[in-house]
Amino acid sequence: MLRGIAADPAARALNDDCAVLEIGGKTLVLTHDMMAQGTHFLPDADPADLAWKLVAANVSDLAAKGARPVGALLGYMLGPDDARFLEGLTEALSHYGMPLLGGDTISGNGPQVVGLTAIGEATALPVPSRSGARAGDELWITGPVGAAMMGLEALQADCGDSLAYRRPQARLAEGIVLAPLVTAMMDVSDGLLLDGRRMAEASGVTLTLDTHAVPLAAPENRRDDALRWGDDYELLFTTPPGTKPPVPACCIGVAISPAGVPLLIDGSGPAPDDRLGFEHS
Amino acid sequence: MLRGIAADPAARALNDDCAVLEIGGKTLVLTHDMMAQGTHFLPDADPADLAWKLVAANVSDLAAKGARPVGALLGYMLGPDDARFLEGLTEALSHYGMPLLGGDTISGNGPQVVGLTAIGEATALPVPSRSGARAGDELWITGPVGAAMMGLEALQADCGDSLAYRRPQARLAEGIVLAPLVTAMMDVSDGLLLDGRRMAEASGVTLTLDTHAVPLAAPENRRDDALRWGDDYELLFTTPPGTKPPVPACCIGVAISPAGVPLLIDGSGPAPDDRLGFEHS
Repeated sequence: MLRGIAADPAARALNDDCAVLEIGGKTLVLTHDMMAQGTHFLPDADPADLAWKLVAANVSDLAAKGARPVGALLGYMLGPDDARFLEGLTEALSHYGMPLLGGDTISGNGPQVVGLTAIGEATALPVPSRSGARAGDELWITGPVGAAMMGLEALQADCGDSLAYRRPQARLAEGIVLAPLVTAMMDVSDGLLLDGRRMAEASGVTLTLDTHAVPLAAPENRRDDALRWGDDYELLFTTPPGTKPPVPACCIGVAISPAGVPLLIDGSGPAPDDRLGFEHS
Repeated sequence: MLRGIAADPAARALNDDCAVLEIGGKTLVLTHDMMAQGTHFLPDADPADLAWKLVAANVSDLAAKGARPVGALLGYMLGPDDARFLEGLTEALSHYGMPLLGGDTISGNGPQVVGLTAIGEATALPVPSRSGARAGDELWITGPVGAAMMGLEALQADCGDSLAYRRPQARLAEGIVLAPLVTAMMDVSDGLLLDGRRMAEASGVTLTLDTHAVPLAAPENRRDDALRWGDDYELLFTTPPGTKPPVPACCIGVAISPAGVPLLIDGSGPAPDDRLGFEHS
């Protein structure tokens, strides 16, 4: 929906879900994520986990821009346990060194909705975007997919380790180290295949993906699911050929000239009914 | 609730509902307002009016800081008529010269909730706050109270002019002109008496208010209600004695040394059960 109002030239990074704002010779990166009970978090979620995830999801957007956190504004609808939310919020903000600058608290009469605006300062220019991949570039991911999926299933089964789902880690340090080296970068929040397609479309290239090169935090027989699952917040990025990333990362494909479809998965375009990941509104 | 996490020194303006952030020699002012259907807007509200009000409420926060708008981030839960919301949003953003920089759209399964983060740049330093009133200062308001109240009643009765309720005007130009002259300033969004009490408490003074000096956009027999009604978005400010504001404004009281209660209304403290205005969460 927002794209309809992105004609304004100032909204130049809107399709990246982050805004880039020049001010006083500095470059700010701003992002806003909103989460609704029943859509983005379970009705019985621990409010501290919700707070953590809200912060991590926003910081992950900053990480993909190589931005260091400067501060956050919270939009908070009162919920089942505000003190517990506050605990998780304080913990997450402290973890990422991001002070709470302000915000708004409201009462509501329906499912809880929370939002966070994160403000960061770019550490490398130009600020990486998802649109910079060029034919010949190599495609990388900073870590495995599937951890959040397995964590959610552990939580639902009340058995096993749900930490990766409840307390995802934004790749902040990795993003800052990578920002000067990448041609394109984004976080994988909606599923590797879907986000990969978005990067390909934004860049005007085809990305070829070798799914078996993708590191997995799930059993091998769940590989197809893990490639389409979100919430892992690893960084997906491209580099000029021959670049060796200075942080742990796996090469999972290459960018080629447009080949009819944005994404070639093990050599084939996805089936028409393949949603590839989690589609927002 | 937010005050619980305001111990962080960076949150120095949290009790003003605006954050002040120094960056690259510039001073940014940031604010976030959230509105929920059924709590902050009528379920059958025109989505374009909702968008307008969301923008105006945030711009009003910037106005109280003497900040010029730089941009906004929208948090938008899809609603009954997104195209109509977009119309009102575009109109309001254009009216205040504030580009949309980015944001998030989500699906929800309950009453609609929307949020806006407005970013402004301070035009006068120090940035006015609600805490600067000193004994001897004069207390002013830029315009009448009660217009939004009458507008809402007109809307509900389907008779008369509801514009002041549906399309409130933030006093942006007035705020910028006043910022270098005031000792304290805030917008009247929750009711003159309540916001006056907040200014008095933040400043550590008592404000004496002559209610009959307050300009009224309602019948005289509704004066008591109008003093307690929000959504008018006039600016309430204090100046050193003898200052003549360069914009239309009415002197409605003075600041005196603490006199036991923060607010003296026509010489008396308010009754214990007087809510004075619209209390958030």
